[in-house]
Amino acid sequence: LRKGAPEVIFAETKTGEQTIRMAQTLLAGTGRAIISRVPAETMTALQATFAEYETQVREAAHAMVIYQPGYVRKRSGGHVGVISAGTSDVPVADEAALLAEEMGCQVTRIYDVGVAGLHRLIEPLQKLLADGVDVLIVAAGMDGALPSVVAGLVPVPVIGLPTSVGYGIGGGGVAALLSMLQTCAPGLSVVNIDNGVGAGITAGLIANRVAQARKQH
Amino acid sequence: LRKGAPEVIFAETKTGEQTIRMAQTLLAGTGRAIISRVPAETMTALQATFAEYETQVREAAHAMVIYQPGYVRKRSGGHVGVISAGTSDVPVADEAALLAEEMGCQVTRIYDVGVAGLHRLIEPLQKLLADGVDVLIVAAGMDGALPSVVAGLVPVPVIGLPTSVGYGIGGGGVAALLSMLQTCAPGLSVVNIDNGVGAGITAGLIANRVAQARKQH
Amino acid sequence: LRKGAPEVIFAETKTGEQTIRMAQTLLAGTGRAIISRVPAETMTALQATFAEYETQVREAAHAMVIYQPGYVRKRSGGHVGVISAGTSDVPVADEAALLAEEMGCQVTRIYDVGVAGLHRLIEPLQKLLADGVDVLIVAAGMDGALPSVVAGLVPVPVIGLPTSVGYGIGGGGVAALLSMLQTCAPGLSVVNIDNGVGAGITAGLIANRVAQARKQH
Amino acid sequence: LRKGAPEVIFAETKTGEQTIRMAQTLLAGTGRAIISRVPAETMTALQATFAEYETQVREAAHAMVIYQPGYVRKRSGGHVGVISAGTSDVPVADEAALLAEEMGCQVTRIYDVGVAGLHRLIEPLQKLLADGVDVLIVAAGMDGALPSVVAGLVPVPVIGLPTSVGYGIGGGGVAALLSMLQTCAPGLSVVNIDNGVGAGITAGLIANRVAQARKQH
Amino acid sequence: LRKGAPEVIFAETKTGEQTIRMAQTLLAGTGRAIISRVPAETMTALQATFAEYETQVREAAHAMVIYQPGYVRKRSGGHVGVISAGTSDVPVADEAALLAEEMGCQVTRIYDVGVAGLHRLIEPLQKLLADGVDVLIVAAGMDGALPSVVAGLVPVPVIGLPTSVGYGIGGGGVAALLSMLQTCAPGLSVVNIDNGVGAGITAGLIANRVAQARKQH
Amino acid sequence: LRKGAPEVIFAETKTGEQTIRMAQTLLAGTGRAIISRVPAETMTALQATFAEYETQVREAAHAMVIYQPGYVRKRSGGHVGVISAGTSDVPVADEAALLAEEMGCQVTRIYDVGVAGLHRLIEPLQKLLADGVDVLIVAAGMDGALPSVVAGLVPVPVIGLPTSVGYGIGGGGVAALLSMLQTCAPGLSVVNIDNGVGAGITAGLIANRVAQARKQH
Amino acid sequence: LRKGAPEVIFAETKTGEQTIRMAQTLLAGTGRAIISRVPAETMTALQATFAEYETQVREAAHAMVIYQPGYVRKRSGGHVGVISAGTSDVPVADEAALLAEEMGCQVTRIYDVGVAGLHRLIEPLQKLLADGVDVLIVAAGMDGALPSVVAGLVPVPVIGLPTSVGYGIGGGGVAALLSMLQTCAPGLSVVNIDNGVGAGITAGLIANRVAQARKQH
Amino acid sequence: LRKGAPEVIFAETKTGEQTIRMAQTLLAGTGRAIISRVPAETMTALQATFAEYETQVREAAHAMVIYQPGYVRKRSGGHVGVISAGTSDVPVADEAALLAEEMGCQVTRIYDVGVAGLHRLIEPLQKLLADGVDVLIVAAGMDGALPSVVAGLVPVPVIGLPTSVGYGIGGGGVAALLSMLQTCAPGLSVVNIDNGVGAGITAGLIANRVAQARKQH
Ligand SMILES: Nc1ncnc2c1ncn2[C@@H]1O[C@H](COP(=O)(O)O)[C@@H](O)[C@H]1O
Ligand SMILES: Nc1ncnc2c1ncn2[C@@H]1O[C@H](COP(=O)(O)O)[C@@H](O)[C@H]1O
Ligand SMILES: Nc1ncnc2c1ncn2[C@@H]1O[C@H](COP(=O)(O)O)[C@@H](O)[C@H]1O
Ligand SMILES: Nc1ncnc2c1ncn2[C@@H]1O[C@H](COP(=O)(O)O)[C@@H](O)[C@H]1O
Ligand SMILES: [Mg+2]
Ligand SMILES: [Mg+2]
Ligand SMILES: [Mg+2]
Ligand SMILES: [Mg+2]
Ligand SMILES: [Mg+2]
Ligand SMILES: [Mg+2]
Ligand SMILES: [Mg+2]
Ligand SMILES: [Mg+2]
Repeated sequence: LRKGAPEVIFAETKTGEQTIRMAQTLLAGTGRAIISRVPAETMTALQATFAEYETQVREAAHAMVIYQPGYVRKRSGGHVGVISAGTSDVPVADEAALLAEEMGCQVTRIYDVGVAGLHRLIEPLQKLLADGVDVLIVAAGMDGALPSVVAGLVPVPVIGLPTSVGYGIGGGGVAALLSMLQTCAPGLSVVNIDNGVGAGITAGLIANRVAQARKQH
Repeated sequence: LRKGAPEVIFAETKTGEQTIRMAQTLLAGTGRAIISRVPAETMTALQATFAEYETQVREAAHAMVIYQPGYVRKRSGGHVGVISAGTSDVPVADEAALLAEEMGCQVTRIYDVGVAGLHRLIEPLQKLLADGVDVLIVAAGMDGALPSVVAGLVPVPVIGLPTSVGYGIGGGGVAALLSMLQTCAPGLSVVNIDNGVGAGITAGLIANRVAQARKQH
Repeated sequence: LRKGAPEVIFAETKTGEQTIRMAQTLLAGTGRAIISRVPAETMTALQATFAEYETQVREAAHAMVIYQPGYVRKRSGGHVGVISAGTSDVPVADEAALLAEEMGCQVTRIYDVGVAGLHRLIEPLQKLLADGVDVLIVAAGMDGALPSVVAGLVPVPVIGLPTSVGYGIGGGGVAALLSMLQTCAPGLSVVNIDNGVGAGITAGLIANRVAQARKQH
Repeated sequence: LRKGAPEVIFAETKTGEQTIRMAQTLLAGTGRAIISRVPAETMTALQATFAEYETQVREAAHAMVIYQPGYVRKRSGGHVGVISAGTSDVPVADEAALLAEEMGCQVTRIYDVGVAGLHRLIEPLQKLLADGVDVLIVAAGMDGALPSVVAGLVPVPVIGLPTSVGYGIGGGGVAALLSMLQTCAPGLSVVNIDNGVGAGITAGLIANRVAQARKQH
Repeated sequence: LRKGAPEVIFAETKTGEQTIRMAQTLLAGTGRAIISRVPAETMTALQATFAEYETQVREAAHAMVIYQPGYVRKRSGGHVGVISAGTSDVPVADEAALLAEEMGCQVTRIYDVGVAGLHRLIEPLQKLLADGVDVLIVAAGMDGALPSVVAGLVPVPVIGLPTSVGYGIGGGGVAALLSMLQTCAPGLSVVNIDNGVGAGITAGLIANRVAQARKQH
Repeated sequence: LRKGAPEVIFAETKTGEQTIRMAQTLLAGTGRAIISRVPAETMTALQATFAEYETQVREAAHAMVIYQPGYVRKRSGGHVGVISAGTSDVPVADEAALLAEEMGCQVTRIYDVGVAGLHRLIEPLQKLLADGVDVLIVAAGMDGALPSVVAGLVPVPVIGLPTSVGYGIGGGGVAALLSMLQTCAPGLSVVNIDNGVGAGITAGLIANRVAQARKQH
Repeated sequence: LRKGAPEVIFAETKTGEQTIRMAQTLLAGTGRAIISRVPAETMTALQATFAEYETQVREAAHAMVIYQPGYVRKRSGGHVGVISAGTSDVPVADEAALLAEEMGCQVTRIYDVGVAGLHRLIEPLQKLLADGVDVLIVAAGMDGALPSVVAGLVPVPVIGLPTSVGYGIGGGGVAALLSMLQTCAPGLSVVNIDNGVGAGITAGLIANRVAQARKQH
Repeated sequence: LRKGAPEVIFAETKTGEQTIRMAQTLLAGTGRAIISRVPAETMTALQATFAEYETQVREAAHAMVIYQPGYVRKRSGGHVGVISAGTSDVPVADEAALLAEEMGCQVTRIYDVGVAGLHRLIEPLQKLLADGVDVLIVAAGMDGALPSVVAGLVPVPVIGLPTSVGYGIGGGGVAALLSMLQTCAPGLSVVNIDNGVGAGITAGLIANRVAQARKQH
């Protein structure tokens, strides 16, 4: 697989046994297995099977990482910011954050900026930029307006992460995705609805490339 | 027809003759004919036919109003604000403004707020509110984010007016409309894409009702 | 948040704990927490947690309001009419009514006008207008024809509230929404499918603005 | 072909030569050729080719009928009513009327009922029913509400004929069609957008069957 | 309601109590209550409440009819044929048949013609036509081809009844509906997906009108 | 490119110069250039440029083939049948036929089977099968029913070729495509709307494979 | 039914009893019943009813075949390759493989080629072609890219089999299907999402036709 | 506007006068005006108006840049690769390349990789990576498969740029966009169909950030 991007097991459409077998293969190969969208039953089976391993579970995101004993995650020096518009977007934002972390990045979260909170966003955003963040992920559902607003304010690349929050027409993340694709803030790129894995890996690739440049020179 | 809302001739799908005949009927009845989405040929025919009448043409909006000689438009005392996100939204915003004016409202325009212009918007918006505007129309295409942003800032009703600006998926006003319907700023109502007539009449009905209350008490 | 519009907690995509925490914050701030689309489990948890508070539950609408002891809801003087086409639209109509009430408005309901009931509607509608209603909400699913019919009859602003009633193509409220957006009765504005909160707040903003004008003069 | 339904040449996607050849075949076989959606060029070619024949042209509908000299259209005794909501729906309504006429039916038209005209409709509708009309076709674009309203009032079968009038989302007849399919007035059946031919033949089949029963007994 | 079409209670989006109350009103008024799409729980409640009444339940269709003791269904003399393409379409076809029966029609069923059964259809169809059937309902899911094929063969009106059978793109009845609306057999009209009630009432209106003509002359 | 399938220049979205340059490259390489969807201007330019070459033009299909002087098309021994439902489908059917011919196949056409022509189809179809046809392409627009009907009758593979004929909902070939994908006749595979090239090459691959087996044994 | 294609009972929308009855009919007629998309309950009922029969169950595919005692499946000599992009596509690929086997074909599987596995594919693919495979089925969800890539490499016909794997916009197999229909590798034909039965029968028809040619010559 | 991203005038929905006025403002402010999607008439007007200025026109992309005399574009040190799948994608790819160049990046183009050209791609791609390219843009229409394939091969971030090439269902870039959003190669982000401006600016932001890191260290 492409150097620098970890393989992720998508557990939702697999049986528990298939996921376990794949996790074993990844652990044998790279010392780590990242598993996303884990059904409750598969989660239980994984925890039983890998009881001896170091694991971390992101409950909201239904994600799990299993580490071979002694596995050490390298620090890449990259810095990713993850912003969520609402509380309901946190599971997806967390999935993105997890992936960036597993790629060695420092991840700073600014969650639940809220419908009335643009002003609440300004200060932590300025601090983040001052801290030299390399790339931002902005998760939002419903109208999906926040990524466009943020992209209009910052000098770093922004990845729009639409979430399946919202009902009625354009619900389930469709309006959010379309709105991001139609952004008036050129320079925003997007991933699919609820695709925290894709957003996290894209951000990780960008941040790590910048970090590498910082180191090499 | 419902008291307070003018009848409008939708000329796009009519022959020039049909439109002229309908305009004559309206002029005979109410002393005024408002005609929207006038094809170029019909516009020429109308101007020839009603050369003796007072007329006004909104070129960008392809709209025309014809007045019986001596027609006096009553001032209702209502006050409507019309905001456009971009230059491309002006034709639709103008159609809305025209309708509110023909309903007797004072109309204040804030056009081309621009993608980088939220700050440019704050001051004129505050002035508008200080002037006691009764209702706002906010026209936007592409991501349709502006009406939500405005609705989150002001204490008056806001009508979202999506415009058919934008290409690709969600283009032609679809993303703008869906995004407004999915707004995180509860209290925003919308009309269909490019429906300046509908937005103008809705705003006129609201503003005139408030104005009436002002007068009666 | 925009002055005059209450903040509403959307409980559907939140854990019970998240909703409770947010309710506590709102109660501390404004003395009241309005919560919509409450899942059954969260409802139970809320009732247990806030057993000491005054509460009201709209069962059909799955909505709840919690009041700080001693909280007094101010009467704004605004008057909102809520009409539902059918019995199945009542939950959504009720959510809208609740919001308008919580904004201080008097709310008059005309429910289940029925497919054969246009004539049954005329009389109560005339009474409502005679009583000086400021704005109407009309909830309808399936063909969504009622809001257009009503908007063609009354001199006050009408807000179309499509409901997710109906199956087959255009079902789940889609035909109702599209039909309202395509209305032949200019002057009808709409909110998204099942968005009683949005309709109620929009109506409340309009009615309260009129009421304020009545008072000030 | 099915007994009682005339064959119709759909000229839109054919070359002029193909249409002429097919018309000649039909004339040779049945003494009559009905041609719909005739492009301007093909119309000219047809008129030149069949200059010696009796013809009728429905200009608005872009339809033409050519009769073998001496052709006599039989009166079936069936009676079809064709109602159009607006002026813009007339071309499609006319196409439907033409087909019913060519099937031998008496056709009564009530056109341009208008957005404010439900009351204007009641009287001619009552007269039509008193005259013993067998079936109604109701053509409408935009919100497509009229067929549902009519179907709720009359004891005869109603065929909804959506027209491609209207812009924005649900435009081009989509909202009209969906709204008719979602009708609250059970007993309304529909044909596709702008399919005047289909509506006319369906109505003709129904009316002629009733007429036949009248005669036979 | 329109004379000749029975009112039907749509139970799917109502509580058991609402349905029972409505059934009681209908029974008091017309001596009969027809209830469609009855959820299992509501079915049980209805059977308990109306244990003393004569009832009939169409299990596959989830429909129920309750009769006031002594209720006598009048024979109208109309004759409706109901054809189903497959076994999976039977519930919807049965709902249509029920409605036509309750309107007094004789109903003849030809079910499960099958993918290989066009030839199996010819004979019973010819018998049906010989028996003087007035109108046909043809139910089909998936590709929805059967109604077009039948409409091309018979001289009576045909109502296409798409069913929500089929998966993948165009599944859930969408391809079937679109295919019927795009029929090459002009003279086919349609109702919405799974709308057996609508098809049955439309057919009943047509058949009863023909029957009435037979009687009157 | 895949052995056995010719490269085709898709001229619609290219400038005349680009197409000419590509044709020259193909001629130099394989002695033949097949060009599809040729705009009128490009067609003229091609004919001027390659005036010295042997060419064939399929006018309806807007397709052209240019042969290096002395080019000899090999006979593969494969046999492909191309059926078109209507006259309007001929251009697309012709494109498919051209491709199969250029792959060396014998092609038999059965065009304009017609809406009333299933019986007219049976005889030529039986002859085709008796002649040992290897595979059938069936082109149809509107309801797209013909490929399913044919596939239910014959023992050879059938390729459904939807054409963009038809207006209203499901028009432009959408209903035809969906209906073919939802076929009740398992064993039908499809290509995209108007994709005569794809259908022709697929059929050519199948027929030539069979022909090869015939030869080798 | 068409010679060479077995009838398959689609059990998903049938009751257990209906499926059992149909299986008995098929067993009586052809000695074999193939049943697809069997719900868990129906599976149990089938196993109980046909305990005395030889059966095979494809668990992942929820498919079952029942054989009359002594039934002998004929070897056709056809050879079908079935490739799956991922693990999640296996159930659908298995359904396709089952059908080809029941048509007498030899079936070779290459499963879980994987996102990083194009190179892993080359070798087994070359072996398959060397073994004289007649046709390939390629199952893929999400982006559906694999069938296009394979079709660009091999000289045999390829059938694209989109699977309902993937979430967000274009999920559930829609992007996969559209992508296959838009393939840049002309000569790829497709069946509907998850339609393993259709893909298997199509492949079987092709392979058996080639095999027949091999035998006859 | 956000530091580092140039403002671009979208000329398609503007009058020539509006575009000229905006260009003058930008020239006065930044010394440069970038104008995209310039209609032919506006292009002529711009060239006449700014005859004295240095300009560059990208004909295929319908884009123009006007420079204040003496304007010097700074070299950022960033390096962007732009790959196009086909010839038809070149206009959009060129628009992206232009934007990256105007942001100071070195841009390397690899155009028309072609349907049969994956192997032709490998070598130039390896050279590009060896040259230290920071980010890749991959433009593709139709099936949109190329960006996924490239993203699976390279260690740098990839931006998918769908183009509106392709007809039939999923045409106009829809299948390409959906396929990129459903990519099996995590780490690919996308912009809207034909949005070369967005892709170019996103790539420029990434490359310039890396370049800045290279310089600073
Ligand atoms: N400022 C904002 N801009 C865009 N979306 C927002 C904003 N605030 C909240 N949302 C969205 O509203 C939905 C509900 O938010 P919450 O109630 O916090 O879970 C989430 O999908 C958020 O993405
Ligand atoms: N009463 C009505 N009900 C439904 N649609 C209407 C009504 N009146 C007008 N329309 C529609 O409004 C559109 C424009 O009407 P007109 O201006 O008369 O052509 C047409 O598509 C009509 O179908
Ligand atoms: N001859 C046919 N024409 C159209 N649809 C059919 C035909 N035969 C079966 N079907 C459809 O195939 C689906 C499954 O049929 P069955 O397996 O009998 O339940 C149903 O939705 C039927 O409508
Ligand atoms: N290898 C490829 N992968 C994806 N799309 C391709 C490929 N080659 C050509 N195309 C697409 O095929 C279409 C026509 O290509 P061309 O004829 O070169 O313009 C363009 O939209 C290309 O994107
Ligand atoms: Mg929040
Ligand atoms: Mg602007
Ligand atoms: Mg009711
Ligand atoms: Mg009118
Ligand atoms: Mg069956
Ligand atoms: Mg024909
Ligand atoms: Mg895999
Ligand atoms: Mg190329």
